[in-house]
Order: sequence, then C-alpha cells, then structure tokens
Amino acid sequence: MTAPTVLTAPTAPAVPTSAAPTATASAAVAQARSAEIEAEIARDPGRFRVLTGDRPTGALHLGHLLATLDNRVRLQDAGVDVVLVVADYQVITDRDDAGDLPAVVREVVLDYLAAGIDPARSTVFTHSSVPALNQLLLPFLSLVSVAELERNPTVKAEAADAERRQGRGMSGLLFTYPVHQAADILFCHGNLVPVGLDQLPHLETTRTVARRFNQRYAAARPYFPEPEALLTPSLTVLGNDGAKMSKSRGNALELRASEDETARFFRRARTDSERRIAFDPEGRPEVANLLRIGAHFAGTTPEDLAASVGDAGAGRLKAVVTEAVVEGLRPLRERRVALAADAPVVVRDVLARGNARANDVAERTLADVRELMGTVYS
Amino acid sequence: MTAPTVLTAPTAPAVPTSAAPTATASAAVAQARSAEIEAEIARDPGRFRVLTGDRPTGALHLGHLLATLDNRVRLQDAGVDVVLVVADYQVITDRDDAGDLPAVVREVVLDYLAAGIDPARSTVFTHSSVPALNQLLLPFLSLVSVAELERNPTVKAEAADAERRQGRGMSGLLFTYPVHQAADILFCHGNLVPVGLDQLPHLETTRTVARRFNQRYAAARPYFPEPEALLTPSLTVLGNDGAKMSKSRGNALELRASEDETARFFRRARTDSERRIAFDPEGRPEVANLLRIGAHFAGTTPEDLAASVGDAGAGRLKAVVTEAVVEGLRPLRERRVALAADAPVVVRDVLARGNARANDVAERTLADVRELMGTVYS
Repeated sequence: MTAPTVLTAPTAPAVPTSAAPTATASAAVAQARSAEIEAEIARDPGRFRVLTGDRPTGALHLGHLLATLDNRVRLQDAGVDVVLVVADYQVITDRDDAGDLPAVVREVVLDYLAAGIDPARSTVFTHSSVPALNQLLLPFLSLVSVAELERNPTVKAEAADAERRQGRGMSGLLFTYPVHQAADILFCHGNLVPVGLDQLPHLETTRTVARRFNQRYAAARPYFPEPEALLTPSLTVLGNDGAKMSKSRGNALELRASEDETARFFRRARTDSERRIAFDPEGRPEVANLLRIGAHFAGTTPEDLAASVGDAGAGRLKAVVTEAVVEGLRPLRERRVALAADAPVVVRDVLARGNARANDVAERTLADVRELMGTVYS
Repeated sequence: MTAPTVLTAPTAPAVPTSAAPTATASAAVAQARSAEIEAEIARDPGRFRVLTGDRPTGALHLGHLLATLDNRVRLQDAGVDVVLVVADYQVITDRDDAGDLPAVVREVVLDYLAAGIDPARSTVFTHSSVPALNQLLLPFLSLVSVAELERNPTVKAEAADAERRQGRGMSGLLFTYPVHQAADILFCHGNLVPVGLDQLPHLETTRTVARRFNQRYAAARPYFPEPEALLTPSLTVLGNDGAKMSKSRGNALELRASEDETARFFRRARTDSERRIAFDPEGRPEVANLLRIGAHFAGTTPEDLAASVGDAGAGRLKAVVTEAVVEGLRPLRERRVALAADAPVVVRDVLARGNARANDVAERTLADVRELMGTVYS
C-alpha cells in the first residue's frame, strides 16, 4: 500500500540466491492463494477491503495505470471495498521539500477519477487528515523491535536509495515506514493488499503487528485481520530511457499528457537497431516494453503485435504503439479534461467525502483499540 | 518531560570524563539561565508554559514529590501554565503488559490533586486521548535522522536497561521516544521543561525538532518555541535499600501510604553502624538521605537535623524522620483520603476537563502545522 510499486519497487532488492528455492516455493504459494482470492472475489466481493494508494509526488503516469490503477478499478467494479490513501506524509520520508502538495494531490485525484475510481463506491483520503489513524502508530510501534525494522526490505532499499540520491541519513519517518503502512492498512481493517511478487515481504510487518496486537490485547477474539497479498499482474512499465518508468527519473508518460506529447514520448523511446520486431523480454527489453504497452491498449498479445509489425522496424512499432495508446487513453483523457474544468470543486468534494469516511472508520477503530488496551479512563 | 526523573534517571549515563569541562561549563550556563528564568517567572509568570508528566506505572512516591511534584505545584501557584501528561503510551515502550492502567492512572491523578495540582489552573491529560498531538509524531519524525535517535541519551540508557532487565530488543516505540517527547512538549507550545542537571541533553531532540520545523516550514516567523530547561533542585531521594527510590525496585514510600506503613518504611531503611549522626552525602549516603528527607519536612537543614540527633544513633534518626514525614505529609494524605472517597467521579472530571483542553490545543496546533506544511486540500 501507499503504492508499493511507487514507493518501493525502484530499489526493491532481488531475492537472494541462497533463498531462491524457498522464495520460488512461497511465490507459488502466493500465486495459488491469489487465484483462490480472485475466485472468492467473484463469489463474494463484499468480504474484501483493499487498501492501497500513492505518494503524491507528481501526476500519475502510464506505469501507475498498468501496474496498479487499472487493477484498483477492476476490484472496485467487482464490488470490493477499495480504500485509496494519498500518502502525503510519505512524501517527506526522503526529501525536505514536499513541493506544492495541494497541486499534486489535485492531479492525483483527477487521475483516479479519470481512470474510473468512483468516490461513491471507493474511499479516497489524505493521510494527514486522519489523526485517529496516525495515533495507531504509537501502540503499533510498541509491537515491533528496532532490529525488525532494520531488516524490513522497504526500509533497507529506501535507505540505500536515499543515501545514494542525496547522501543523507535515513529519517525517523522512513525508518518507521513499515509501521505507518500497518496503521494505514489496519485502521480500516483492510484484508487485501495488491502487491507485485517482489513485494511480498513488504506486507510482513503489517501481518506481524496485527498478529501481536491480537495476541496481546485481543486473545479471546482477534481484532485485526492479517491482511493477505493479492498478486498483481506485475506489469513493469519502462520509461523511454529503458529504466523503470518513474516520475523522478523524468522518463514517464503522464496520463494527462496530450496526444502530441504522447507521440513525442514514444518517438524518443529507446529501442534497438534490429529491423525485425520480436517479443524477447530478456534480450530486447525496450522493444518488449513497447510491445506490451501497445498490446495492452490494442487488446492483443505482444507476440501478435510483434508479428504484425514484422520487418518494418522500430519506427513503425512506435507509430503503432502511439496510436494504440492515444486511442486507448482517449476516454480517460476526455474524462480528465472534463473534470479538470471544475477541478477545485471536484477534488474538494471527493476528499471531503473520503476524509469524512476515513475519520469515521479510524475513530471507531481507535476507540476499539483504546478499549482493548485498557486506556479508557472515563 | 513525561517525568524525566521517572523515565530516564535510573539509568542516566554519567557525564563522560573527557567531556567534563564542557559539561561543567554548560551546567554553569544552564544554572545561570535557570536563575534568570526564575526571576522572569516572578515578574511575568504568564509568559511560561511548563510541560511535564509521568509514566503511569504506579502510585507516586516520596521521590516524585520531592524531585518534581512539589516544584510543579510551586510553578502553578506562581502563575505558570502547567500541563501534565499522564504518558500512558510510554508504559508500553519497554514492557508488554501495561497492567491495570485505569487503576494506576486514577492513583496518579489523586496524587496530583492531593499534592496541590489544581485542575482549574493546570491541565492534566492522558496521552492516548489526544490524537492530534500524536499525529505530530509523523512530521516530526521526518525532521530527525536515525543516527540522531541512536545518539539520544534517553534511548541509549533505556535500551541498555530494557536489555538488562528483560533480555529483549528495543521496541520501535522506545527508539522514537525523543520524538514523542517533542510532540508532547510542542503541541501546547511548552517553552519550559523542568529537568535535573543530568537530563539537560534530553531536551535537545525537542529543540532540534522545533528549530528544523521553523527553518523548513515557518522561516518567516518561527512557529514553535525552542523550549528551555528549568533546572530543578535535583533532590534525588533514595529508597530504603539505599538505591534511588523507584516503584519498580519496590523500595519506595508511596504518598498514599498510612502512618504505620511510613513508620515501617523508615524502620527498614538502610543506614550504617556509626552512632554519631552527621551529614556526609559522599561518605554516608543513606544517612544523608534520611537527613535530607527529614530536614525537608521539618523545615530545617540536614546539618542542623544531624546535630539535633547527635550521638543518639540511626534508630533515633529514623524516629525523628518518620515523625517529620508523617506530620509533613498529613495535609496531603488527608486531602487524598477525602478525594479517594469519590475517586471515580473526581478523576473522570479532572481528565475530562484536561483532555478536552489538550484536544482543543492540539487540534489548533495540528491545523497550524498542516497549514504551514501545505497539507490542507480544501
């Protein structure tokens, strides 16, 4: 949550070789369990509440749409209760200057709505607006040790990243990030978190916090769910420089981009000099990336799209992909333009509604937690 | 704050020898500044707000009264705004079982009232009841690094203590303790914190958080005060085993104790076999401790009390001290018995009033902080 893909994937450590057999086994288990969950969603979506979200560091881009946003809309439309946190406090985990947060939050909310998030069915809230959620950080911090936090893959990866980018030490906020994540997920009793395969370990602190809270304060009847991972198709989208698409790398195609900007983006995309287009993710990752993007929007497979371009080369491929993306994003972009005309009112209403609901839920949960912990004095 | 003497002093590290000249110099500076502040309090007490408090791990004892509680009442009666936090979340920093918190909180509040804290003038609140205060933890955590937290003397000392006592690692809550302390002090714009000389470094994280917040988000006009230390007389009271008086050591005389219990407590107090009683804090610490306690309540000096006992030996000294304490504590104990008759209502009313005021203040501060940080979206 708070967008694992956004927040953690750039530096997510590879599975260590020595642990590979176990990792493979647990990946298989996770995949099997996700398939079961999908079947349960089809039968009884009301049993599930999904918590996920984004750090508001910029407008959302194609990578967000294909990796997470489309999936959230799919879950919402299937009848799952989707809760989206705009994790504004996470913006300052690794930087001093949060930028113009109201402007960025506005763009992110418009992206959500344009992509199909429906504020009447899903909850969109900002982290800093829900004090009762944030208070959960204190009891939850008592349930994990410093050594456990140091071992958390998100903390490890982000610490290395912060060091590399800015030569600064890790902030206390970044160090305690896994516990904020636990509060974000558990305040609303979220029981499902969409993650990529490489992000499975990131849910462990939340599961540990839930389990220990239950053992210590709610032994008779577990209070918090231990949330499960819902594996996402894990479609990693590359930017036009061949690295993972990321706002901060400046290699991203924003969802709000115009058709001209879209065409320019793909014209500049890195490919290779082989004229024959083929889908070879290992050997030709940049071409494979374009094929995947194009195929996604054209409703075909990367292999078939490659065959249709054949020997026409990268220029032709780019033109085909551009057209597919422009056509595919047209409805989203039209909705976005319509919404943007009245953006301040639209965004204010969505957040007012979402924050009110999040506060309601958080205050009930905090009251329960205080009761269970015996910190009610009147 | 959150009772530095209670929370940190048992394991407060001695000033390292190499730093001694600097420490002595800064102690002199701090003492001079405290004298200035006392003069300012006498002139204009309304300029000051004191934040301090206690971990509710048991009823308060004689050590609390002489080291902190009397001083708080003195400041209140001088016209200073005194805010007392009953730091319930701090109870679980280093233990799993918080005990019967409502019962312990009730005893602590009764001790406050009996000692002279006036809920019409001072604010008594429980930490877990003020979500807006607790939310400040998140932005504040972004302002300090993990390395700085590791260097904090409270964290270092408590970590060693937790390890020694229970062989367990430090919790995330204990590790971030200096930042909670900053939130506790700054939420109400506390500008004065009573501390002992050995606790001067403990205020540094709060001062750092205030300074950095101002630099980053309120450069035009500083928002948080950098609170100053008000050195307390630093009267360390020993228990009847010769170690510092502490609830957890079981060597404490509770304020609520009966006259018989008081007499028994002093009969069992460790002394030495020398019949001649003299005030020699270095050579005869246990006898000196009894002399200090007796002198405090008899309104004399330890030297004069020693002279009055002369060659009559430890038995006579104990009888004299017992009588002084019994007489000295009589008004407090009578008030306490009267209050205790209606304890649930009394305590509920004090906390309802204090928590309402603390929430008011915290919500205003959080609103300001969100405004200054640019996390207001409607």
